[in-house]
Amino acid sequence: MIALNHTHDPAARSWLASANVPGCDFPIQNLPIAVFRHFRENEAFRGGIAIGDQVIDLARVVVVGCLEGRAAEAALAGAYHNLNVLMGLGPDAWQALRHGLFALLQEGAEGPKVDALRTCLIPQVAVEYNVPAQIGDYTDFYTSVHHSANIGKILRGDNGTDPVLPNFRWIPVGYHGRVSSIGVSGQEFRRPLGQSLPAGATEPVFGPCKRLDYELELGIYVGPGNDLGNAIRLADAEAHIFGICLLNDWSARDIQAWEYMPLGPFLSKNFATTVSPWIVSMEALAPYRQAWVRPETDPQPLPYLNDASNNAAGALDIQLEVAIDTPQRRAAGANPVRVSQTSFRHQYWTAAQMLAHHTVGGCNLQPGDLLGTGTISGPTPAEAGALIELTKGGREPITLSGPGAPDEQRSFLEDGDTVIIRGWCEKPGAARIGFGECRGTVLPARDNT
Amino acid sequence: MIALNHTHDPAARSWLASANVPGCDFPIQNLPIAVFRHFRENEAFRGGIAIGDQVIDLARVVVVGCLEGRAAEAALAGAYHNLNVLMGLGPDAWQALRHGLFALLQEGAEGPKVDALRTCLIPQVAVEYNVPAQIGDYTDFYTSVHHSANIGKILRGDNGTDPVLPNFRWIPVGYHGRVSSIGVSGQEFRRPLGQSLPAGATEPVFGPCKRLDYELELGIYVGPGNDLGNAIRLADAEAHIFGICLLNDWSARDIQAWEYMPLGPFLSKNFATTVSPWIVSMEALAPYRQAWVRPETDPQPLPYLNDASNNAAGALDIQLEVAIDTPQRRAAGANPVRVSQTSFRHQYWTAAQMLAHHTVGGCNLQPGDLLGTGTISGPTPAEAGALIELTKGGREPITLSGPGAPDEQRSFLEDGDTVIIRGWCEKPGAARIGFGECRGTVLPARDNT
Repeated sequence: MIALNHTHDPAARSWLASANVPGCDFPIQNLPIAVFRHFRENEAFRGGIAIGDQVIDLARVVVVGCLEGRAAEAALAGAYHNLNVLMGLGPDAWQALRHGLFALLQEGAEGPKVDALRTCLIPQVAVEYNVPAQIGDYTDFYTSVHHSANIGKILRGDNGTDPVLPNFRWIPVGYHGRVSSIGVSGQEFRRPLGQSLPAGATEPVFGPCKRLDYELELGIYVGPGNDLGNAIRLADAEAHIFGICLLNDWSARDIQAWEYMPLGPFLSKNFATTVSPWIVSMEALAPYRQAWVRPETDPQPLPYLNDASNNAAGALDIQLEVAIDTPQRRAAGANPVRVSQTSFRHQYWTAAQMLAHHTVGGCNLQPGDLLGTGTISGPTPAEAGALIELTKGGREPITLSGPGAPDEQRSFLEDGDTVIIRGWCEKPGAARIGFGECRGTVLPARDNT
Repeated sequence: MIALNHTHDPAARSWLASANVPGCDFPIQNLPIAVFRHFRENEAFRGGIAIGDQVIDLARVVVVGCLEGRAAEAALAGAYHNLNVLMGLGPDAWQALRHGLFALLQEGAEGPKVDALRTCLIPQVAVEYNVPAQIGDYTDFYTSVHHSANIGKILRGDNGTDPVLPNFRWIPVGYHGRVSSIGVSGQEFRRPLGQSLPAGATEPVFGPCKRLDYELELGIYVGPGNDLGNAIRLADAEAHIFGICLLNDWSARDIQAWEYMPLGPFLSKNFATTVSPWIVSMEALAPYRQAWVRPETDPQPLPYLNDASNNAAGALDIQLEVAIDTPQRRAAGANPVRVSQTSFRHQYWTAAQMLAHHTVGGCNLQPGDLLGTGTISGPTPAEAGALIELTKGGREPITLSGPGAPDEQRSFLEDGDTVIIRGWCEKPGAARIGFGECRGTVLPARDNT
């Protein structure tokens, strides 16, 4: 695990004023990476680092030569149209790039290299983003015990028995998802069509999804991979994590309920998955590590999922919120309404445990692979990461209430709704860092069968 | 659907004698494609077409210029290190390549282009193969009603009720699989480790899989894809199918039983999947089409899975067999033992229905995507496509009996076992064509946790 160092100093400031604004997602302590290009210009995508309201163009960083050694090598790898090469280089390269840019961006830094770096800045308002990696495989986990319990009560009733399935407390449960339909924040997608079984019916019907939902998740990008048959040990797992993004695992609940036996979700998930453009590094997240504590009444993990380092600091206090914007609110110029807020620190399994479990049977990971954490729901009802939980299976609609537009109710998502996920880390004694946002919009179904 | 034409004439012969040998998998009527290079030489992989005991090197076909027009374009696309570009070109390009090569290979063909083609032949014994596409997503279906019934009886007992789950007869059930661990015939893989729940236990144990199985499947490579949100109609689906290969979906039954709720198989499947190198085109398979008939007592499919063309000729009579070789048999110089034989014609859903269902919710397919059919089991017990069915859940071991070595018993696969899948089409009035073989070997587990 990465130790705290000068790049985490909460007093550090940049000569770029926008990076020092309180509440800014991208201060000098963060330096997340994305793939971007100028908006509406047909130029090549390449890697960029966020600072304040600017993007540092890594392709131009290479051209102007403002970094040296391993940091310059990392910038070159990051100048490609996806980040897979940089992801494969490993933590020393990622750290060299972070520390090299930190030195040039710090308040008081000057000289020809700083002057050169100033020419690499592009305003974020002038750029668009792409999915930052060629994702070879996308795996979605299911690692929030609160989500699992909420869903269990909805599906099987709240009858006093444990609503969590027997394997949940032993296995970071996961399954393979769809790569081709992963899009970057701003993604618009058609409401899916599919089969569902109406309540009480014996035969399914076909049509647009009636129970369209979001799932609040984080995404974990794999750095260096492993060979087939050669598991990644839990103690080594973090060195294989490039960084973390926001992720929305859109879900069609009615389609899922009918199709999922016995092989899991398929059409109910594969129509769209949205990721944030910015990937926050494990080094930037170091101040927000916490002990990973399992309730004493729960079984302790099997040895391959249990080590001291993970227990001491495997959890991450990443604060998360979900807001919904609606056509009515947009038309009225009103802001989106926040519907839940929670933290990743409540998750039952850590990112490192997910990687260790994923590979323990021999499965090989590759640079750029994406792991979703599964829905992140906290311990209280208001911390639920999906509408199906907030509305008790659709039976108790939530009210979207905020200034500027009349109240609206939602059981599930309606056409035109936009879901916005935001994430950040904040605590006394550490710099606040943010993930930006992950935004996606539901378009009406189109039936061309 | 592709009409029968002169390339299907069973009387057609090649000037290459090995292509005319009775029982040969690769006569002039077949012309399947693979990605290959000289064995043990560090040269680039590229596409090749099988004829008799030779491979036609498409890179050399381009250099010597023995094809023209669309066929030459297709050969150029096929000369790349994977077939994705050729797959994306579509049926007219695939047909042009087939018909162009057929004309040059036919008995009696002569002239400078035929002479040039002779220089493109490389003996199959001198080459090795690779996975033929960069597979963006791999989907595995579950479309044999006999497999579903066999498994249902093993898991839920043979108690007179329908062992098939309610959604099976309505949905070509599928889920997303692992791309990174797909290997080509000859693949050797470590026995997976994982958690399983011993019978009667309340806590899982960790260790090497004790119920390792194969699954006899076919693989379907996608040609041109579809845009997100724009479903492929059933009537158009076959134009999106590049071709069909053999596939072994290795399965760890004990790991699967403990992990699969509620999101499906994960570590029980993602340690290895093996495909045959050769892909047989839909045009080559045209003589083996059959009516797709659903039992009258079963529900008729929903409209998006129902059209006249699919009903008339959507099924394919591809004969399949599984053989097992063991360390003892290898040491004795004895042949592998066949353990089952069946045909894809018994499958409950067709390849076209799988594509139509996959995309009906909006999911986008891309050239090179791979769809597994799910285990192919026929109506009789000897036609089962997995050991778990042949051995009734491991309770009734099968005997491997054949000349040259003592009998052995198997409940599940043992270390060193090799599973060999073969496929072919044969009937009066049509040329026999084959798929070659799909071979994989189990290595002992390696626990490096």
